[in-house]
Amino acid sequence: MLIDYKEAAEFLRSHGNYYILLHTSPDGDAIGSGFGLCYILRKMGKNANVLCTDNFPAKYDYMYLNYTPQKFNPDTIISVDLADTKLLGSKLVQYGDYVELCIDHHVSNTEYAKRTLLEPEAAAAAQVIYQLVKAVGLVQLDSMIAQCLYTAIVTDTGCFKFSCTSSKTHLAAAELMTYDIPAAEINRRMFDIKSKARIKIEQHVLNTMEYYLDDKCAIAAVTLDDMKRAGLPDEEFEGMTALTTLLQTIEVGITIRQKDENKYKVSMRATGDIDVSAICQKLGGGGHTKAAGCVVEGKLEDVKLKLLSAVAPALGIDLWLA
Amino acid sequence: MLIDYKEAAEFLRSHGNYYILLHTSPDGDAIGSGFGLCYILRKMGKNANVLCTDNFPAKYDYMYLNYTPQKFNPDTIISVDLADTKLLGSKLVQYGDYVELCIDHHVSNTEYAKRTLLEPEAAAAAQVIYQLVKAVGLVQLDSMIAQCLYTAIVTDTGCFKFSCTSSKTHLAAAELMTYDIPAAEINRRMFDIKSKARIKIEQHVLNTMEYYLDDKCAIAAVTLDDMKRAGLPDEEFEGMTALTTLLQTIEVGITIRQKDENKYKVSMRATGDIDVSAICQKLGGGGHTKAAGCVVEGKLEDVKLKLLSAVAPALGIDLWLA
Repeated sequence: MLIDYKEAAEFLRSHGNYYILLHTSPDGDAIGSGFGLCYILRKMGKNANVLCTDNFPAKYDYMYLNYTPQKFNPDTIISVDLADTKLLGSKLVQYGDYVELCIDHHVSNTEYAKRTLLEPEAAAAAQVIYQLVKAVGLVQLDSMIAQCLYTAIVTDTGCFKFSCTSSKTHLAAAELMTYDIPAAEINRRMFDIKSKARIKIEQHVLNTMEYYLDDKCAIAAVTLDDMKRAGLPDEEFEGMTALTTLLQTIEVGITIRQKDENKYKVSMRATGDIDVSAICQKLGGGGHTKAAGCVVEGKLEDVKLKLLSAVAPALGIDLWLA
Repeated sequence: MLIDYKEAAEFLRSHGNYYILLHTSPDGDAIGSGFGLCYILRKMGKNANVLCTDNFPAKYDYMYLNYTPQKFNPDTIISVDLADTKLLGSKLVQYGDYVELCIDHHVSNTEYAKRTLLEPEAAAAAQVIYQLVKAVGLVQLDSMIAQCLYTAIVTDTGCFKFSCTSSKTHLAAAELMTYDIPAAEINRRMFDIKSKARIKIEQHVLNTMEYYLDDKCAIAAVTLDDMKRAGLPDEEFEGMTALTTLLQTIEVGITIRQKDENKYKVSMRATGDIDVSAICQKLGGGGHTKAAGCVVEGKLEDVKLKLLSAVAPALGIDLWLA
């Protein structure tokens, strides 16, 4: 059932002991929304913990350095930025059927929760949380909550760069910045600083990138060996797909990351009107229209062919006549 | 004389034929502020032209594709984003002593104009123009004006990433985005798109980058041969030094670009408190505290040694004991 801000606020006010579930491979929006909401609930006098199957990348640690899990019996399971219970991962899958409230911005949300506060036009789940707080005066924001929500918004919008950014996104940022947050440091940390391993793997991505379909599609593949050689932990691969869209002519940029011998995680980014979510859905995945993903099995060269066959029609290119 | 928004508005309303002067090597803020203000004045029923000694880079063309210089006798010279008349260049230097109004955000503004509307805390001159329009209801904004002001703001803030970005900057962006501007396309054009040649030379910079002085200094060298091989024109080397500061530990990032057999153009960037302008001054150059440059003669390896000898003391490192 889809609910509105007022109903979501009433729900949060009338319960007391929350588990907040995040998706696997948590990104800035998941972590910022999760901890932001956790601190909001605690400020409302509730018990709340953040749960995730995977570890959090160290770059986000300023959001949870002062966080301590509370001891309580959870009576209310909620989720943020979680489009599908498939993304709960092994440690949280047990909660999949018991989510009372989901706060999300994914148009692909499967409405698995009893109540869903969904704003598909919001740039980030954190923007929905911000609007919830403001719409109903849920709580007075503070610097820590503002840092979490700001981080979530900048990571999901590429620092207000992507088309998901709206006037409302900037209004949220304008108010969050009044809470004396180190915005420029957060942005250097999120967008500029890289480890030697990351620089190395970006190098590899750029060096091995291949252009297809009249330079409208670029594919970069990274094997387990490449990741090991660079010394880059799996969770720090985030954001790499942006590198495949640098060339002006590119309409679909793709990274293929090896997960197992014959199993590849595919991330797609669209620069224009192509709906990569539709392409990824055909391949068993999903996501947003401009950023989506799927898992494809097979040998690397076959995976590439499969992807190009799925992308070509969207670009109006007939592979067999080309 | 420093004036406020009301006085600036009165001034603009009471005159009729404007020349708007921009600085040499015009950037996004100069061009966006200049054309933005020009369209505002024309909408007020005034005559207005934009003047600049240098040509405008093609990436900004959407702001002036529909612009036609008007024929009129100018009675009022104004300037935007121009801190010092030294920056007028050869074609505009004649107007230097006759600037009636300057709208700027540079703390270093020399107050050369008869009236100066100065907001040193504004992220861009365009933010001052936006605030002027709003404060006094100068004119109804439209999509073209909004695109100009938005472009100016994103280029001067690194898309809201730098520390000059404030809550007011986001408020301006929030309203500008309501005028149906192609913000994501503008941002892709300003920040993402690169030519194959640029990708290649960036690759080269990253591949050949060397780390010195406890990883606090990185140096990347690009020879004439490298530029020729990549096919990158000299003027498109802009912004390359940012690549040398990606590693978290880097305090000084340096690119060395060959200009002649034994002559190298050096660009330095500081990430923290090191004053690279002071270092470059020692080597006969200059610049800002966080971005400076100089020209050093000699063989490449000797140039590197000279630079490291100049940088080491600033980092508190004694080269001869290290």
